Amino acid sequence: MVLSSIWKRPDGSREPLPPNLVIVHRKDISPEAVQEICASVGWSKREPELIGKALQNSLAVVSIWDGELLIAFARATGDKVFNATVWDVVVRPSYQRRGLGLLVMNELLKELDTYPIPLVTLYADPGTDGFYKRFGFSCDPSGVRGMFRERF
Amino acid sequence: MVLSSIWKRPDGSREPLPPNLVIVHRKDISPEAVQEICASVGWSKREPELIGKALQNSLAVVSIWDGELLIAFARATGDKVFNATVWDVVVRPSYQRRGLGLLVMNELLKELDTYPIPLVTLYADPGTDGFYKRFGFSCDPSGVRGMFRERF
Repeated sequence: MVLSSIWKRPDGSREPLPPNLVIVHRKDISPEAVQEICASVGWSKREPELIGKALQNSLAVVSIWDGELLIAFARATGDKVFNATVWDVVVRPSYQRRGLGLLVMNELLKELDTYPIPLVTLYADPGTDGFYKRFGFSCDPSGVRGMFRERF
Repeated sequence: MVLSSIWKRPDGSREPLPPNLVIVHRKDISPEAVQEICASVGWSKREPELIGKALQNSLAVVSIWDGELLIAFARATGDKVFNATVWDVVVRPSYQRRGLGLLVMNELLKELDTYPIPLVTLYADPGTDGFYKRFGFSCDPSGVRGMFRERF
């Protein structure tokens, strides 16, 4: 199963997903499933109750499922008008390198583009900026720098 | 009037604001006033109707007023749980260098810290990172890069 074939070709044509895979644009997905897929890539464990609240307060949430198994996930926060920020882009390790990262990001941006938002931002982990450049993201344009303040 | 004296001293003590200045933590402030203060520093003009929606969809909005004149502003988006992003930190030019930037950021972070959010992020314009470092922000920790995608 080569999922990269689902990705839009240069000529704009697209193949359908295999029927067992489902793309979901909903906030009320299982927080336990999100916790588990994040743990599968080694991210720090978050409480399902908090995950549920974060999903509800997100602007857009995209998940891709193989049956009942969550295999890719991404979400964004934002004000619906001027900006959105992408968070938690993750593909289950056993499903990586099949185009699911491209697919889940494409679906998320498609949903964000239903709003009039002119600016979508994200924070790219080391080595992932090439991936995001494929969607038109660029690093530090005009010298703008991402900054972080961690509290706990 | 030296407003920097309102800033918390190293010993934690603080002086009150002059009585004509008022700090407001509310989303339902005048969109026209926000449009005007943003224009005062040369930012591109946004429609008041869109500004009003963005304020409502923000996680926190802080404004400082001298009577009916908006003199400082900042807001943040976020999911109330895992992250927040600071946007639109602005001080009216004729009121700059009096500590209002520190004050408005401090008020915004104070409001954000009423949530259990562990990570606050922002995108710093060139030359402003020193300002944000005073609040514990750092640039590109662990090689994480801010990225941007502009649509229009």
